Amino acid sequence: MKETNHLGKRRKIIDGFEKVTGTARYTADVSLAGMLHARPVLSIYPHAKVRSIDAEAALTMPGVVAVLTGQDLNRGRAAPSRSRMILAGDEVMFAGQPVAVVVADSEAHAADAAALLDIDYDVLESVDDAEQAMTDELLVWPHGAPTADGSMASLHGGEAGGDGGQKASNIDQQRVFERGDARAALESAHAVIERRYTNAWVHQSYLEPHAVVAQPGARPGQVTVYTSTQGQYTVRAEVAGALGLRDRDVRVEPMTVGGGFGAKYGILDALVAAVSLHVRRPVRMVLSRSEDMLTTMPAPGITTDIRLGADEQGQLTALDVRVVIENGLFSFGHAGIIATVIGGLYRCDNVRIETFEVVTHRSPTGAYRAPGVPQALFALESSIDELARELGHDPLELRYLNAVEAGDLTGTGQPWPDIGLKACLERARQHPIWQGRGQTPGEGVGLAVGGWPGAFSPAGAVCRVDTDGTVRLHVGSVDISGVHSSMVLIAAETLGVEPEAVEIVQGTTDSGPYAPGSGGSQVTISLGGAVLDASQQVRDQLLDLAATQFEAHREDIELVGGEARVRGVPGMAVGIGKLAQRAQRQAGGPGPVVAEGRAAIKAGAPGFIVQFVRVQVDPETGVITPLEAVAIQDVGFALNPMLVEGQMQGGTAQGLGIGLYEGLQFSAGTLTNPNFLEYVFPRADGLPPIEAVIVEHPSATGPFGARIVGEPPITAGAAAVANAVRDATGVRVTELPVSPEVLWQQMQVQSAAD
Amino acid sequence: MKETNHLGKRRKIIDGFEKVTGTARYTADVSLAGMLHARPVLSIYPHAKVRSIDAEAALTMPGVVAVLTGQDLNRGRAAPSRSRMILAGDEVMFAGQPVAVVVADSEAHAADAAALLDIDYDVLESVDDAEQAMTDELLVWPHGAPTADGSMASLHGGEAGGDGGQKASNIDQQRVFERGDARAALESAHAVIERRYTNAWVHQSYLEPHAVVAQPGARPGQVTVYTSTQGQYTVRAEVAGALGLRDRDVRVEPMTVGGGFGAKYGILDALVAAVSLHVRRPVRMVLSRSEDMLTTMPAPGITTDIRLGADEQGQLTALDVRVVIENGLFSFGHAGIIATVIGGLYRCDNVRIETFEVVTHRSPTGAYRAPGVPQALFALESSIDELARELGHDPLELRYLNAVEAGDLTGTGQPWPDIGLKACLERARQHPIWQGRGQTPGEGVGLAVGGWPGAFSPAGAVCRVDTDGTVRLHVGSVDISGVHSSMVLIAAETLGVEPEAVEIVQGTTDSGPYAPGSGGSQVTISLGGAVLDASQQVRDQLLDLAATQFEAHREDIELVGGEARVRGVPGMAVGIGKLAQRAQRQAGGPGPVVAEGRAAIKAGAPGFIVQFVRVQVDPETGVITPLEAVAIQDVGFALNPMLVEGQMQGGTAQGLGIGLYEGLQFSAGTLTNPNFLEYVFPRADGLPPIEAVIVEHPSATGPFGARIVGEPPITAGAAAVANAVRDATGVRVTELPVSPEVLWQQMQVQSAAD
Repeated sequence: MKETNHLGKRRKIIDGFEKVTGTARYTADVSLAGMLHARPVLSIYPHAKVRSIDAEAALTMPGVVAVLTGQDLNRGRAAPSRSRMILAGDEVMFAGQPVAVVVADSEAHAADAAALLDIDYDVLESVDDAEQAMTDELLVWPHGAPTADGSMASLHGGEAGGDGGQKASNIDQQRVFERGDARAALESAHAVIERRYTNAWVHQSYLEPHAVVAQPGARPGQVTVYTSTQGQYTVRAEVAGALGLRDRDVRVEPMTVGGGFGAKYGILDALVAAVSLHVRRPVRMVLSRSEDMLTTMPAPGITTDIRLGADEQGQLTALDVRVVIENGLFSFGHAGIIATVIGGLYRCDNVRIETFEVVTHRSPTGAYRAPGVPQALFALESSIDELARELGHDPLELRYLNAVEAGDLTGTGQPWPDIGLKACLERARQHPIWQGRGQTPGEGVGLAVGGWPGAFSPAGAVCRVDTDGTVRLHVGSVDISGVHSSMVLIAAETLGVEPEAVEIVQGTTDSGPYAPGSGGSQVTISLGGAVLDASQQVRDQLLDLAATQFEAHREDIELVGGEARVRGVPGMAVGIGKLAQRAQRQAGGPGPVVAEGRAAIKAGAPGFIVQFVRVQVDPETGVITPLEAVAIQDVGFALNPMLVEGQMQGGTAQGLGIGLYEGLQFSAGTLTNPNFLEYVFPRADGLPPIEAVIVEHPSATGPFGARIVGEPPITAGAAAVANAVRDATGVRVTELPVSPEVLWQQMQVQSAAD
Repeated sequence: MKETNHLGKRRKIIDGFEKVTGTARYTADVSLAGMLHARPVLSIYPHAKVRSIDAEAALTMPGVVAVLTGQDLNRGRAAPSRSRMILAGDEVMFAGQPVAVVVADSEAHAADAAALLDIDYDVLESVDDAEQAMTDELLVWPHGAPTADGSMASLHGGEAGGDGGQKASNIDQQRVFERGDARAALESAHAVIERRYTNAWVHQSYLEPHAVVAQPGARPGQVTVYTSTQGQYTVRAEVAGALGLRDRDVRVEPMTVGGGFGAKYGILDALVAAVSLHVRRPVRMVLSRSEDMLTTMPAPGITTDIRLGADEQGQLTALDVRVVIENGLFSFGHAGIIATVIGGLYRCDNVRIETFEVVTHRSPTGAYRAPGVPQALFALESSIDELARELGHDPLELRYLNAVEAGDLTGTGQPWPDIGLKACLERARQHPIWQGRGQTPGEGVGLAVGGWPGAFSPAGAVCRVDTDGTVRLHVGSVDISGVHSSMVLIAAETLGVEPEAVEIVQGTTDSGPYAPGSGGSQVTISLGGAVLDASQQVRDQLLDLAATQFEAHREDIELVGGEARVRGVPGMAVGIGKLAQRAQRQAGGPGPVVAEGRAAIKAGAPGFIVQFVRVQVDPETGVITPLEAVAIQDVGFALNPMLVEGQMQGGTAQGLGIGLYEGLQFSAGTLTNPNFLEYVFPRADGLPPIEAVIVEHPSATGPFGARIVGEPPITAGAAAVANAVRDATGVRVTELPVSPEVLWQQMQVQSAAD
């Protein structure tokens, strides 16, 4: 790395003041003249006919403006996805599905009236889990799943479509990713590990429940949506698609996001927009925690059957995986990424990954930070651990031996670019937690490896210099996990100004610039490149202006401290604001100092991680106490180490939550713990200290060598927990979360066997 | 002109729907959560000490939150201009000056309380008019006028400054523009015309009174201002300057403007921002019509002594002008533009123009469409008319003989670029109103010439193609007189899309792009060039994308109907939205279709006009009935003839108002007709049909040859009225407006003399 002034140093996030003082504007803070308040009424059954909705009592309540049902708002075609669902028609398909909306002049009036709504259901048999679903005895979509073009024919043909003669099925998609001959290789392997792993559905558990404010636009069919989202362009497309509007007539203004983790791409937006257009008033809907957990899109239940084969030296020879993803009502498409990672951590010539996307009468699932990967790696990394034990190898060294490098293949057959998995393992090898393991009875240290390829898309960004020397960056991305704070540093570094002189201008769908959604760990890479490009162009403009003003060679100009200076000539300096002012005010130009930057990288910047967890297990109760966690992650170059560590710690905490605590509980298709009392996630007293160890193996594509950061930290924690428990107790738990009950029972079985 | 698809054709304005249906958002429509309402209390005296302000009764009124005075809000330095004034301190300087502000929870509560405010004044002697002011017996600013840097020393030295020994004076600035020897030339002239002309102060009379909403920002010292303005950057500078804030902490969001005419550059903004920051709540202030007329910045009173000399052939040989501009409390600087135009319509070797900017205890004056020029040309064009009569020449031919062309000098000595004054006169020569004049007794036809050099500054603009094919233009200008509608046509023309596919994104001070204020007739020239540049760059990007997609030569691609097509190959066509979508979504790029355009023209595109007015004068009463008006204007190229004609007709109407009706009436420094009952301006029944005749003598600098349009139409109407009255009655009225009383009296004098 060349020397830096601002990048690579610990910096507070730019919106800390607003967040700490309560002036940051979240969607629930939006208050518009004439605004109404909407409360959804959710189905209590996973599958039922809606016989009738009696709104009479509700409508007589004070302040009630309307009670709306699917008859009022739906467009007569089945929604192909959760984000395009408005209200249930005459059939509810999952417990938690919005059936009606009460609109009133206050939140309280709407809630009071919603409680009086009398919905008469005719309960139908439901498909409650993947196992039942795969029998196809009862079909969730007897005529095929609805598609985006409005037809009811399944993508696989189905009776209604009739193009392929393929029967409608609850298996929405079945894929096989294969290279070599995994089964043959297993036959001839020196050691084989075979296990089935399962996990509970978990929820993203963002602090801010879903919230949307919609306001009719100036012309019929126009609507503005204020929303807590990770990607305004996605929300625009979903709202326009659901409501049959033109994209240009849907204006999405992304608000401060109180946690997204993949779940904030538009769930209520179409509904609230439809309500707003119907009542012709601004409408706000803010979900309660229970509503949010019932009606949003958690992470799926995944059952993974995995078989590993290796030779005597520990070289992996076979990987055979069968993954059943229980998606709920709509298939979400986790298979590709699961296959990419589960078949892409270790070099192996014989790989077969078969995936099943299965639908049930449960709430549709969606993305949760590294979607599907924590669950898949729980299976892989638990099995690798067992393989090491079976072979008598050190689990770290076995991983190191097999770990992928540049040119090795992902599970879907693409070659990895230059990556830092081995660099992480090398650092892990020396860590005290690993060096000192095995010394305290009742304790165990678990190791697991994770990673994420990272999305990458083109992005634009604008850099402007204002007349007072303020540098403004216009971005179309949403600030999740402090990523805009890094954009500020990139510009400050490039233009020789203090970070405080750089401001972010947040774009709406109308204003742009275009940027991909803040997900897939791609923003720093995609947007960062565009910001760097724009800043460099502006730098060139400033150098030209100063060179002209001082009649100096451009190479002799430097940008320092908000000024353009002639090197070595004291007094020959001018503020960049003054340069901008002259450029834009002076008749004849050259005009404003501004540039439109773009990034269009041709390869991603994948990030890998090694995670350790040290636990203590109470032999009397099976209670697991996490004592220490370590995340060792290759981030390429830490643009702002403080934020990188925050990401690593946050992701690790979530991984520990998936490993130790979290699980949505269903009874016959209905969620029974939709609240933070009964849904247990890591709280301060349930988390150990988390050490973040930054490894910097530079990427060729990210700005200043940076790699993706956000997703890797969640990927290996659950597996590390299971491996730590195994280390402490000798028990291999194959079900997430690793519950004291199950562990205690298995410990009893093991004691009996000993 | 090359053939055009959209430009040069009659097109409705883009925001007509919003304006007609009432959904356009004006500042008074802004309603923010927790917003308070402010009413100013204005001084009733032109000059007085404020002994005390008793707010007790007001503060007990329901809903009153605060009564604020200069002690609460002022920063302890005298404001150097009207736009930086907050509240009066212990001295009021003009009748209409805000002394206090009452802040309450509703407009009505604030008004009720404001009526109870008890202000005890100690009335002081005042400087009521220019004549009195120029004696310097009583000084408006005894210690010199306040300056922007906060010192109380006059720019001319003054007692307090003491740097030059020059005495403080009510003559704020005295300038002489001179070439040749005008006095000597007058001595030897064949014919000399000498007259003094005066005019009443007139008001811009926009339909929407001044209105501002200010809202404190997220951090201390930050404020957002929603305002009816022609230039958000000017407002930002004024608010920041007045309140001692950083530019970047003042965010100005320009709202729909209900008429500006030069008056909307920030009058109340600093005050409302100060109130808002003081009470820490959003605050709205909307002036009543009377308050608006009392406290804003009308056009000045101007006294012009003019002497013209000519030889026998009618060639102008001398022009000697003395202009006294009564500015009110602050000098505004009308002198330069008056000199430019009054000395720049006719070729003349000997010119002397002396200007006096005089301050009085009246409300500060400001810009009103072609500031000072209608008044100055009333003097010049009346005198030219007299000269023609004196010489027995046709007044049109005399003007044609002397009319300036490219290379001739303005009154301040700059050469004109290629201009169309003679082209307008040629067209006027053939007009039936001129051909048919002199045939009806009691009627007269007046001719006058006007023009405006036009400002020009650099501007930026962004053009983006969205994935649905929508083209967005980001502009930092404010849409006055439909100028954004022309921007849409420029983009549509360049990109081969329908104008309906082009949307304007209005910039704030934060978002940019930079554009000069919408004044000085410059937006079409400055911004239009930037829009054209941006559109052309986007066109190139689209052609490249399509050429790649179709594997065709770029020259074979055409953009038609929202598509890129391979010429002559049916079916080889792709929507530009699809091209944009691929470009911005596809990993590896090339990224979004967008370009930052800029214009930095090096010369203006001046516009000239010939105006005819036909009047009938009632010999019994002196009542003047305008029967017909014609405006013949060189606009270079009419981007949208309908809007150009609208400008020409509106400006002509205002010129007729100045000529026939309008005048602020003062009694001892206090305005006595601050309302639309007593301040008479042209209403539908007082206006004749106005014919707009477009002359297109292309400019070398404006987009597609366009010239400035906005200001010329107001410049010659008043003079044409006076000349028509002269033609009808033989009486030369030298005072504006030409009132029936004065005319009738002079007609009596003339009858007696006959």
